[in-house]
Amino acid sequence: MSKNLTPRSEDYSKWYNELVIKADLAENSAVRGCMVIKPYGFAIWEKMQAELDKMFKETGHQNAYFPLFIPKSLFEAEEANAEGFAKECAVVTHYRLQNDPDNEGKLRVDPEAKLEEELIVRPTSEAIIWNTYRNWIQSYRDLPILINQWANVVRWEMRTRLFLRTAEFLWQEGHTAHATKEEAYEEAELMNNVYARFAEGFMAIPVIKGLKTESERFAGAEDTFCIEALMQDGKALQAGTSHFLGQNFAKAFDVKFTNKEGKQDYVWATSWGVSTRLMGALIMTHSDDKGLVLPPNLAPIQVVIVPIYRSEEQLEQIDVVAKGLIDELRGSGLSVKYDNRDTQRPGAKFAQYELQGVPVRLAIGPKDLENGTVELARRDTLTKEIIPFDAVVSKIKDLMDEIQTSMFDKALNFRDEHITEVDDFETFKTVLEEKTGFISAHWDGTDETEDRIKELTKATIRCIPIYTEAVPGNCVLTGNPSERRVLFAKAY
Amino acid sequence: MSKNLTPRSEDYSKWYNELVIKADLAENSAVRGCMVIKPYGFAIWEKMQAELDKMFKETGHQNAYFPLFIPKSLFEAEEANAEGFAKECAVVTHYRLQNDPDNEGKLRVDPEAKLEEELIVRPTSEAIIWNTYRNWIQSYRDLPILINQWANVVRWEMRTRLFLRTAEFLWQEGHTAHATKEEAYEEAELMNNVYARFAEGFMAIPVIKGLKTESERFAGAEDTFCIEALMQDGKALQAGTSHFLGQNFAKAFDVKFTNKEGKQDYVWATSWGVSTRLMGALIMTHSDDKGLVLPPNLAPIQVVIVPIYRSEEQLEQIDVVAKGLIDELRGSGLSVKYDNRDTQRPGAKFAQYELQGVPVRLAIGPKDLENGTVELARRDTLTKEIIPFDAVVSKIKDLMDEIQTSMFDKALNFRDEHITEVDDFETFKTVLEEKTGFISAHWDGTDETEDRIKELTKATIRCIPIYTEAVPGNCVLTGNPSERRVLFAKAY
Repeated sequence: MSKNLTPRSEDYSKWYNELVIKADLAENSAVRGCMVIKPYGFAIWEKMQAELDKMFKETGHQNAYFPLFIPKSLFEAEEANAEGFAKECAVVTHYRLQNDPDNEGKLRVDPEAKLEEELIVRPTSEAIIWNTYRNWIQSYRDLPILINQWANVVRWEMRTRLFLRTAEFLWQEGHTAHATKEEAYEEAELMNNVYARFAEGFMAIPVIKGLKTESERFAGAEDTFCIEALMQDGKALQAGTSHFLGQNFAKAFDVKFTNKEGKQDYVWATSWGVSTRLMGALIMTHSDDKGLVLPPNLAPIQVVIVPIYRSEEQLEQIDVVAKGLIDELRGSGLSVKYDNRDTQRPGAKFAQYELQGVPVRLAIGPKDLENGTVELARRDTLTKEIIPFDAVVSKIKDLMDEIQTSMFDKALNFRDEHITEVDDFETFKTVLEEKTGFISAHWDGTDETEDRIKELTKATIRCIPIYTEAVPGNCVLTGNPSERRVLFAKAY
Repeated sequence: MSKNLTPRSEDYSKWYNELVIKADLAENSAVRGCMVIKPYGFAIWEKMQAELDKMFKETGHQNAYFPLFIPKSLFEAEEANAEGFAKECAVVTHYRLQNDPDNEGKLRVDPEAKLEEELIVRPTSEAIIWNTYRNWIQSYRDLPILINQWANVVRWEMRTRLFLRTAEFLWQEGHTAHATKEEAYEEAELMNNVYARFAEGFMAIPVIKGLKTESERFAGAEDTFCIEALMQDGKALQAGTSHFLGQNFAKAFDVKFTNKEGKQDYVWATSWGVSTRLMGALIMTHSDDKGLVLPPNLAPIQVVIVPIYRSEEQLEQIDVVAKGLIDELRGSGLSVKYDNRDTQRPGAKFAQYELQGVPVRLAIGPKDLENGTVELARRDTLTKEIIPFDAVVSKIKDLMDEIQTSMFDKALNFRDEHITEVDDFETFKTVLEEKTGFISAHWDGTDETEDRIKELTKATIRCIPIYTEAVPGNCVLTGNPSERRVLFAKAY
């Protein structure tokens, strides 16, 4: 494989696939549609996990763990949910292998070891969790239950892409139980806001918060909150969803409680999740033709130091200077790598760290030793400057915030430039194809119109942006009355 | 269910099962043999994970993630390993459900959606990982690979018990690749030592390090290091294993590299793991008839404060005092819970925190306010004392270390008192039945003798304690020459 990435302008999809592989984030495995997340990619995911986990705990949630398998009879209990996932389920039917009598040294499924009831590998855990909650909840005193789990799930997708759509993926799924509709609705909205804060504050990805239309909702939900991001190629990406499930699962699994008035009622539910798909959002929001660009908050290595030397003696002198610097930087809580490998030339190292998105690179050579300086390169802007040695640490500390903010601002400008208000369907089609991005247009609120627009343009309603003022108008397709503009886009 | 636990002396196994449920650690699920780990139990597991993860990273390992599924053809490639796990495998055969035409509202497996090749839900990941490593390794420069993953695995055990033996469990599995036999062997030993340090330093569980006999080794390993702990009922529990895999997996998956001399050789391997089984070890090492006893290092709540009051006014006064204390304790890095619920009486709260093993309980009542004191109760010793208010924080800080050490010492004494040197088989049987614990006895080194002893007594060789001097003798069963004593016990 060539060292350089295919430019984004030439083939965005190819650029993405190459970047994921070359930056050592993930690769395809021997199992159809399942990925291997490589150490560098996993280190970024771990940083996301740590921050999200902290935010969940700060909002009162606890972690727990529920089984990987869901018996078929439980899986089918909530019909809308079951129907939504039935077509992409991995099903366990047997529990034993045996030697294949026709094939020395090979194994086959033992036909005697057929399960009485098939087990579904969880595509999402509402069924098994609500079946469990039934035994945990008797009275309003047992509520709310605020639980999250970090888990793997499986959805047998036909067309897969690393991080964006894989048969197995890693995620967290929150599952909460409440005594009142209002409380559950607030929880669903709260967690969507947590996701938005995480995406914007940590991942430097601006998102639009809103509600899904009925046809785009989670199977089994009464309302789905979402955060929608815009990728560099003008396509939208759903970065997180939070569902108000009403009493659907409580009814399917008969989860009742005695309320404060002493009456029996069904419990109210939410669920919410983000997944390793966020890695795809991260890549496609910030990266460039040289590779990954990471916001400092998520970078496994925030600063890399590369010595430039001809002789061993020069390297020893640089080592001394570098080590002092590393101690100081690490002392300030930064993660620093010193790359003094002698098997690679500085140019190759520079290219590697550009590919892997390390926010700040320092180079120290013999001239720097003479002048008391270092060369500092910023990954996001690809700018370089010479800094006096004693200003380096404070400069880098400032830069961490500056880069984080600047990456967000850049993505925000791009996103805002790519929200286009459109009032007629011809313009809708032209903008969608030529300018791309979100189209803010009126919609008459019917499934039919939504489907028809999707058929004609491949654009879907990404969200109903409920946090902006609702100004009525006329549907961009039918001309029928519309309560407010919604956001259309082609999406990942 | 009664509030009190069955005493250990009456029925140890029943005591264990009740404790796991009543202390809210875990419960059985609707899926045969799979458990639900409840928030309190999971919080303890998270503390274990965090510490182990730190220790793995300090020894140079990185986390990654490999697929849940293993195609059958890969699974069977390393024959010893495949044979070891074939009889307890969950097998995915289909990837879709459909509406059941004979059963309105029900689903059935879609017979059209049969996989060409069955997928095994990983019981351990050597096969999928070594199949992946083949593409990562060309030269000695690509070595070592030092990777760990946190994952769920499935082994279809017929008789299951919460934490100790479950069909699905959580674990970490390290998988490393090396250029030389020596380096791989050292890695396997190093990680066993890491496990020992973790068990003793964090879990306060004394362990014996050693090697497994051939018949007790991991399927596919050339040597298995282990740490063995002793439970209160005199049965041993294998708390962690670290395997030197030789070149077995490299040969099965054709993983070769060019060594420094320019020659092709197969790569050397290790794997090592600990699981949620450690929760069982924790419970059965320290707990008592009142419930769980947690070492401070692993306690999700280290200090609980319970106000004792008759009037609202008293509670308000206690609140003020308690809040100052909480700030100070939290400022020292301790996790503190203030339980001022008005739905429970102090006695019920005391019982709950005893059941859940909170190391230190403070009670503050009206008299304490008058006298400037608090009542401090230690969970491990069940002792109480009155402490002047201004001495509380420093007292508790000291107590955290003291309890941790004292719990370890207590378990160590018990363990050491239950290692009995035995030189004839009659005594062997008597000690095993009456005194229980480890029996240190000579063994002639043959599978036959090992099997025979197991048949006659149910005792297995828990480990060959390689870190003590080898003194020759005569086999306790056959009288044949023996190189050294080994440790026998009945085991979980």
